Amino acid sequence: MTHRIDMCPRFESAFEILGKRWTGLIIRVMLSGPQRFKDIAKNIPHLSDRVLTGRLKELEADGIVIRHVYPETPVRIEYELTEKGRDLKHVMDAVQAWASDWIEMDEPEEPKGK
Amino acid sequence: MTHRIDMCPRFESAFEILGKRWTGLIIRVMLSGPQRFKDIAKNIPHLSDRVLTGRLKELEADGIVIRHVYPETPVRIEYELTEKGRDLKHVMDAVQAWASDWIEMDEPEEPKGK
Repeated sequence: MTHRIDMCPRFESAFEILGKRWTGLIIRVMLSGPQRFKDIAKNIPHLSDRVLTGRLKELEADGIVIRHVYPETPVRIEYELTEKGRDLKHVMDAVQAWASDWIEMDEPEEPKGK
Repeated sequence: MTHRIDMCPRFESAFEILGKRWTGLIIRVMLSGPQRFKDIAKNIPHLSDRVLTGRLKELEADGIVIRHVYPETPVRIEYELTEKGRDLKHVMDAVQAWASDWIEMDEPEEPKGK
């Protein structure tokens, strides 16, 4: 058995952060660079401003997102992925590839193989 | 903006399946091959039999796990990943690599870079 028990808590902790509804999508949209709140929002249909605000705060607390405040008039606020956040690109790409191959939206999900 | 809106529901759906507590760990343990219930259980400390039963049923319904019943005496039951399930290896590897680099378990999480 090659399974490493000592990695379990880290692995579970990662899934706890990433598995929250909308979080994956928010990170994926942010991979294209620093963005204002309204730019993130407009790229994710059906996500409310209230939920986006909450998720951005959680991602900041997790060290995945950094919030820049530029003291201009009017003040400009942008959100950017940290290095920890940008490193999630591989996870996002892997999930997207798998979802693209295997998730059917209009019919019951059945295994294509086996 | 390279973000493809049409992939959103699939991508979100994938995270909904994988983001559920224990599911990632169960799939990771099952990547080593067909296993009996008790073999999966013993590799995941703190996961109750009741929760494992529920997760395996959900993963069966999602076409990720298949349950084999061998009519021996006593009957032998094994759980195996389908092709759809085995394809999650790339996702699991990416999450594990990220978690290993970035998730600290004994101290507050802070970005290492930026």
